[in-house]
Parts: sequence; C-alpha cells; structure tokens
Amino acid sequence: MEQRRTYDVLILGSGIAGTILGAILARHGVSVALIDGGTHPRMAIGESTIPYTSALLRLLAGRYDLPELRNLTSFSLMDRKVSASNGIKTNFGFVYHRPGEPVRPEETNQVVIPKLLDVEHHLFRQDVDAYMLTVAIRYGCDSFQGVRVTDVHQDDAGVTLETTKGAFRGRYLADASGYASPVAKKYGLREEPCSLKHQSRGLFTHMTGVPPFEDCVDPSRRAGAPRRWSQGTLHHLFDGGWMWVIPFDNHPLARNSLVSVGFLLDPRRYPKWEGNPEREFRAIVDRYPDMKRQFANARTVRPWVSSGRIQYSSSAMVLDRICLTAHAAGFVDALYSQGLAITMNTINLLAGRLISACKDNDFSRERFLPVEKVALSMVRRHDRVVYAAFVGFRDYRLWNAAVRVWALGAFLGAFQAQNVLKAYQKTGDVKVFDAMELGPHYGAAIPTSSAYDDLLDSLVADCELVEKGSLDVEEAARLTFQRLSQSTIVPPAFGLTDPSVRFFHPTPPRMLKTMIWSKTRADVEVGAMVRKALRGFAARRLLGVG
Amino acid sequence: MEQRRTYDVLILGSGIAGTILGAILARHGVSVALIDGGTHPRMAIGESTIPYTSALLRLLAGRYDLPELRNLTSFSLMDRKVSASNGIKTNFGFVYHRPGEPVRPEETNQVVIPKLLDVEHHLFRQDVDAYMLTVAIRYGCDSFQGVRVTDVHQDDAGVTLETTKGAFRGRYLADASGYASPVAKKYGLREEPCSLKHQSRGLFTHMTGVPPFEDCVDPSRRAGAPRRWSQGTLHHLFDGGWMWVIPFDNHPLARNSLVSVGFLLDPRRYPKWEGNPEREFRAIVDRYPDMKRQFANARTVRPWVSSGRIQYSSSAMVLDRICLTAHAAGFVDALYSQGLAITMNTINLLAGRLISACKDNDFSRERFLPVEKVALSMVRRHDRVVYAAFVGFRDYRLWNAAVRVWALGAFLGAFQAQNVLKAYQKTGDVKVFDAMELGPHYGAAIPTSSAYDDLLDSLVADCELVEKGSLDVEEAARLTFQRLSQSTIVPPAFGLTDPSVRFFHPTPPRMLKTMIWSKTRADVEVGAMVRKALRGFAARRLLGVG
Repeated sequence: MEQRRTYDVLILGSGIAGTILGAILARHGVSVALIDGGTHPRMAIGESTIPYTSALLRLLAGRYDLPELRNLTSFSLMDRKVSASNGIKTNFGFVYHRPGEPVRPEETNQVVIPKLLDVEHHLFRQDVDAYMLTVAIRYGCDSFQGVRVTDVHQDDAGVTLETTKGAFRGRYLADASGYASPVAKKYGLREEPCSLKHQSRGLFTHMTGVPPFEDCVDPSRRAGAPRRWSQGTLHHLFDGGWMWVIPFDNHPLARNSLVSVGFLLDPRRYPKWEGNPEREFRAIVDRYPDMKRQFANARTVRPWVSSGRIQYSSSAMVLDRICLTAHAAGFVDALYSQGLAITMNTINLLAGRLISACKDNDFSRERFLPVEKVALSMVRRHDRVVYAAFVGFRDYRLWNAAVRVWALGAFLGAFQAQNVLKAYQKTGDVKVFDAMELGPHYGAAIPTSSAYDDLLDSLVADCELVEKGSLDVEEAARLTFQRLSQSTIVPPAFGLTDPSVRFFHPTPPRMLKTMIWSKTRADVEVGAMVRKALRGFAARRLLGVG
Repeated sequence: MEQRRTYDVLILGSGIAGTILGAILARHGVSVALIDGGTHPRMAIGESTIPYTSALLRLLAGRYDLPELRNLTSFSLMDRKVSASNGIKTNFGFVYHRPGEPVRPEETNQVVIPKLLDVEHHLFRQDVDAYMLTVAIRYGCDSFQGVRVTDVHQDDAGVTLETTKGAFRGRYLADASGYASPVAKKYGLREEPCSLKHQSRGLFTHMTGVPPFEDCVDPSRRAGAPRRWSQGTLHHLFDGGWMWVIPFDNHPLARNSLVSVGFLLDPRRYPKWEGNPEREFRAIVDRYPDMKRQFANARTVRPWVSSGRIQYSSSAMVLDRICLTAHAAGFVDALYSQGLAITMNTINLLAGRLISACKDNDFSRERFLPVEKVALSMVRRHDRVVYAAFVGFRDYRLWNAAVRVWALGAFLGAFQAQNVLKAYQKTGDVKVFDAMELGPHYGAAIPTSSAYDDLLDSLVADCELVEKGSLDVEEAARLTFQRLSQSTIVPPAFGLTDPSVRFFHPTPPRMLKTMIWSKTRADVEVGAMVRKALRGFAARRLLGVG
C-alpha cells in the first residue's frame, strides 16, 4: 500500500525521549520519521522532575535553540504554555513507616527545592508527551502512530525498518522505545541475567480521592517539615519497598483530581502477586496505619499496571548506524526521579552528534560511543544509589545516611548542567559540552574526579556487608556520615553531614555559607563549580537570564 | 482468575454517555460497573456543544443533583474546573465554497450564540471523558477498562456479560458503546440496509498549524460576520460534503495548539478512497482556494480516521433488561453537533427509569420504551435535517433556506430544556419531565404539535424533488422561505424568515421583539414556551439562578 519512505533519521518511539530528540533534529534541518506502535494520548510514568532534569532541559533548549523545551522546565511555564493538568513540586518528601505503627516525626526527611531555582512539577505525561509530539511535528517531523516494527536491517549506508505499514529507510536509527526495543531484541543487546544489582517490581496506577498526607497524620506527630508533603513528591518508605505519591491536584488552580500512586517492591520480599492488583495494594497499605488512612477512600481510575522485575540492562547502546536512548537500553527504579535526567543527558549527547553526522555524512560508531559510556555509567551509578536505599529501608538510621549520598549527586548534577549552559551562552562554543562527556567518571558531576564515586562505592560496600549480616546497620550509617563529614565535596551548610538534620533546605543564608565553604574548605574543582552555579542560579532568578 | 461480579446495572462503554449515566446512577445508590474494551485517555469526536446540549446537561445536573455536570455547560466553568485544553465557541459559522473560486461574502452564514446564554465550547474529549470517568468513579462506579465483551445472556432476572476478564452480572444492562455494540450484534438490532436517508463517510484527525479562517480570506471579501469565524465551529460547505474546523487554540489562555478537522463526504460523489488519507484531504482542500490557504501549513498530529458510510440504525433500542443509548443505536452525521444532544436526551429518560426500576424491582420493557421512542425519533429527525442540508450543498440558495429549519429546531430544543428544568426547580415534581417524553412528535421541542415536523417534512419532500430533477433549487428555496414566513412557530426577529439575513444574532433588542411576537402573532403554545425560556435565560444570566 505504502512505498518505502526515506529520512535522515528514523526514531523509534514517540514518547518524551523520541519527541524531544526529533524536535531538536528537525529544528536543525534533519529529516525525521517518528515511528510508534501505539498512539497518543497515553499514560506514561516518569512524572516527577528534579532540578537536575530541569537544568538539563534548559541546557537542551539553549544549546539547540528550541524554546518550547523551556516550557517544560518549571511549573509556572508548564501551567501557562503546555497544560494546566500538572502538579506542583516544592520538595521531595520521605516518610519512613514501621508495620502497625504511626509514623515517627523523627523518621521523615525532606529535600526542599530552593526558591532560587524554579519550582519543579509533576508531569501529567499524557499532556506533556502529546505537547512534545506536536512540537516535533511543527518543526517538521513526520509522525507515524500505530506502526509496529517487524524487522530491522542495518547496512553500510543506513538502516531499514520493516513495519506493519511498509518499510522505512534512514541514514541512522535512534531507538527511543523502551523495554520491548526491537533493536535490543534483534541484536541481542539485553544482558541475561540483568547486570544491575537492584531488584524491584512495580505496581502503579492513577487514583482519585487521595487527601494530602499532612491531613492524615495525627497533629501531635507532625514533623514540622519546611514544605507541605502534598506539595511535593512523597515517598512512603518501608522495609522491602517504597511507594510514590505524586499529586496533580496540589495547587489552587488544579483541574486534575488525580494522584499518581506506585509501589516498587523487592520481589525477594514481595514475590509476584497473582491475584487482583488492587488487593495487593490494599494488603500492603493496610499494614501501615498512616498510609492506610491516606488511601482509605482512594479509588483507582486506570487499570493497575503490575509488573515482574523491572530492571533491565544492555551490553551496548551504540551499534553501526544505530543508537539506543536511555530507556531502550536500561532501567533501574523510579526512586529519586532519575530516569528523565538520564534520558535528557543521553539526548544532549546524541542530538549534537546526529546533527553533525547528517552534515558531514560520518556516522562512524566511534563518534557515538560517548553516548553509551555516559548513559550506561549513569544507569549503573543510579543502580548503586537505589540499591543502597533499599538496604537502608531495613532501618531508618541507614536510610537517613544513604539518602544524603543521592542528594549530593542530585545537587552537583544540577550545578554542572547550569554551569555548562552558562558557559555555552557566554562563549557560543559547543566544546563546553565536552566537559560532560569526559571520563573516567562518565556522567558524574565532576567526571574527572573520583570523589563522588568513592563515597558511593563505600556506601554500597557497607550495604553489601549489612546484607550479608557482617556489618551492623548503625555502624554502616555512622561510617557513611563520617565519610560525608570528611569529604571536601559535601557542602556542610545544607545539613547533609549531620544525621539530626533531616530537612535539607538550601535557604539563602545557607547558600551564602556554602559560598564561603566553596572558597575555603572545599575541593578546588568542586568548590569552583558550586560557586559558579550558585551565582548562575541567583542571576537567573534575579535578572531573568541564563 | 476473577470471580463473577454482581451489580445493579452494567454499563458497556466508558465514553461520555456511559460515564454520565454511571455517575447519575451511582449518585442515587445504584451499584454500577463501567466496562470498556479500551482505556482512557483517548480521542473521541463530538467536540462541539450547542446551547441545546448545554441546556440538557444543566437539566441532568439539576434533576439528578450532580453538580459536576454543570462544569460541562459553559466554556468558563469547563476551563476552570475540568481542563484548560478546550476551545471557545461563540458561533456556528458556515462558509460556502465553489471549486476554484474564492468564498463569496454573501454565501456565508453565522449563528451567534447570544451572550444571554453561556458561551459554548469545543470539548477536548480526551480530557472531558476522563474527567467524567473520574467523577463516576468518585460517586462509586467500578471501572473495568481493557475488558472486552465476548457474549451477552439475558434472562428473567437480569443480564450476564461474558468478558475477557470473567463474567459480570447485572439486573440491567445499558449499552453505551457505539457502532460495534455487542448487544446490537447479538440480538440482530442493526437495520440492514440502514434505514436512514442520509449517506456520508468520514475522514478526520487533529491538526496543528491551522490559522484562523478570517486571516485566510482576502480582506475585500470578508463578510462582516458578527463573530470571528475562528471563535466558533466553522463549517466549510461544498457540493458533496462539508468540513468541520474546531479550534482548541482560539482564546488568549489556550495551551492546546490543536484544531479538530474532519470531512463528511457523500460516498456517491466521493467514493471510498483507498490511498493515503492525507492525500485525499489535500486533493479536496486544493480545489477550494480559501480552504487551501487555511490548510497550507497544517500538519496532522494523529493518524487519520477514514471510514466507510457512517450511518447506522437499529430496529429497537429497548429489549428485556437491556437498553441501548443513542450512539449504540444509531448515528447520522456530525453536522450541527446534534449527537451529544440526542445522547443527553436519552440519558435523561433512561437514568430516571433505571433509578426507579432498581428501587421497585420492575424492569419491564414497557417502562423503558419511551427512551427508544424519543431517541429513535430524534435520530430520524436529524437524518432528515442533514439530508436536506446535503441536498442544499448543491446550491447556496437552497442551503440558505435549509439551514433555517435546523436553526429553528435547535433554538426551540434549548428553550424546551431550559423551561423543563426551571419547572422542576420550582415544583420539585419529576412529572415535568414527562412533557419531553410525550408523543406523537417524540423528541420535538413541542411533542404535541406537528408544526415543526411539518416544516421539516415539506423541506425534505422538496429536496427529494430537487434530487429527482423535478424541482428547481431556487423554487425549493423560495417555498421553504414562504413556509417559514407563514409559520407561527418561527420568531421573525432572528432573521430566519429573510434570505438576505445570513447572520442570526439574537441581540437583546431582537429578543425583546421576539417577546412581543410571542404574545401577539405566535402559536399559543410555542409563544408561551419562547417567552418563558427567554425570561429564564435572562434570570439565569442576571441573577445567576436556574
């Protein structure tokens, strides 16, 4: 029926990764086909942004001159320009639960998103993804929905996709699909068994009738957290897993009454449940009185998604004429909302190379290898961060230590992206992006330094000992805090080094203290980075630039 | 895996009909399962409301005490409470096109929605339908999505649905699905061949990059219409078919850049196109220079839906223990946005009966027969109105006559619904709704009078003669205007009786004239209805009541 269609780049998948990549490429004159087995609108998870993700989106918007991406970088822009169905996110909240007991105020943590940065948000993905698809189409991408790939052929000059609607030919293929990637299957890229340490399975849906958590806790037990739990992404933590609570209804203008709710469960503790997923949800929630109260009148509005183990990994992302984006290559866990950050980093590295390659007709595998190195390294780092968190779920004291290693990485990552964008805006030189691609600590905020990975490796090693029973959790926590205190890359003013500080709130006075630390006691390179970033955020906020 | 689940009422389909019916029933203590083969969110057509539809929704909200339905009755309520992705609709616009020629200003019509009524809107159905599903669930409906019906068994005590996820049992089954209704199939209800006169096939999608039509017309040829074409539902008319243009991006706060675009084509003039639907779209648009200009840079964002003839009809809607809602029983054409009005009328009749039946356990077929009589009668009346319009598309002069017969019915229908609601609010007596259900002119604004149907029947008879070649179009138009002028149910101040008045704009002075007419020259019954309705609309607008 249809004849073969020829493009510069074929993109598999029209989710947020495929559409952002497609929009960037089309904006720069590359002819693009977006091919998707499904159709929009559709639910997707990955609903919570972090300052690091937003910094990366600003970086993409600036580097690739795509103002529409700026609309995804803060709650207010999103609300005015994209969709009024998103939620606001002023904080990450973590509440630790013990079976049969109310929450202890001293076992809660909160990471406040400083007002100096834009307010983050909860993405109602069906709207955001459809918006990005429309943007990609406006820039010139051709969209083919409901088109399933039946085979992939790669040769010296390009790639042919055989589909249910005829063949597509491209000089390059970017696979932005996901777990079921036809490329991973055809070329045997999936690691069997999965090489990631962490194990969890998922159980999630959207619900209505979920009240703010602060209204469900006995007033005498409220913790005095700086922000309302309901105005952020709330994590209910418990031995063996955690639950996300991502409200879209948490601001005065909200039209969307839904709340995204999902469990990630260690399958060794919670083996696959064969019955009604709603019953499993209730069975777990009922064990924790404050969670039970929050979900007493909650009603699911979409079919539950209940999966087996969700981790997968790939031995490679870059083949001749083919590159996988992050989610086609691997996935760890929704914890800490890291998925979108890894995706945006991958797109940053891939899009520039593809634009150049289409111009100079050099699609050599070597050119694209840094994409793989950075993305796989980020996935593996996230795997270790989440692994430590899950071991920490056994005992609040260890979790209270482990969370700080993640928070440090998230802060530093946002700082790096902000600085790189600022340097590019100043110089117009794309070479500044190379700083994000260099080794040996690919994808770390300071890729040339082992300082962050050392902290993480020590934490993971301790957690392995805890798992084996050869290290006490209290001792493991103490060791982590000791290392954090001694490290020259941890700004102490944010409270990351003090176990009794459970709310990390980068107020202006604390930022000032951090500026002083950055000049005096900090590692020279990290100090310079932190200083530059804080100045950049302040300038953006005060002057509206950057 | 699942055991059999038992409810009072099973509803097939969780579109706007199924969810509104389900919410009403659950609100009144009826246990309801909403069973749908698909999932939300999803695109649906039926995106344009008319004052009659909104009046019926207010009537449903008032009669069944469901305030959430009020949120669907005006642009501003919808925008604040449901979704900010909808468009505004201040008018129905009709623009007649001749091949190869620019539009002639004197061949355009506009029906202005008076400010006395609320502003109508363009429903972004994926949001509106999902909202109503959430409302239904909040009231207690159980929703089963992705559940396909494999068989239907009806017996003396109820109905059993066999599905891909086990069996469901109900005391009654409301089939709010659509063309593919499993009930229609099982019980052989579809009329083969379809008994409707009108023939059309559909070709539709959502697009981006569609500018306001007023910006595409040569300024010297602008028609001086009272409202901007882009702020309403625009109909491009041409010999053999018409196109809807329903913008969602037509107000200052719009976040949604999409425009719904669809052709309805007479298959005898435009036989089924086997190639790429985009090419058929372009082939038609390119024939008409002003349409071509409007769509020059338009890009489709969803797969085209291209169907064969879309009319279908059923010999019955009510069986023992089973009732079909409007769209499961029959469909005519999207012209004049009548589909939602027929649906809401059906729900009004069906919901009250079901609430009573569940209480007194009397589900006799007789009890539900008026639903069928009214709904089938409305479908057949709409069939004749659309048939006359399509014959009118041959020549603007005949169309300019035919449109008035539709407009009259639409005005009177909205008046009736408004009056019935007001009477109910005054008396609290559900018997007032009987006025909408009486014969012999079921579903007409004045069911006891043949006056409206006489006008329509004469128009249809003339159109049949035109089709046969035994009546000149000019003469047919003249005869219609003559009958309109002589009729005592046509308020002359709105311009319906004067061929040179092409913009129907019920300004306050014209309403005042209509009040006077209603007391002097109008048919007594219609005069009283019009008077009461105008007073009611004014009171609602001025006092915020009703």
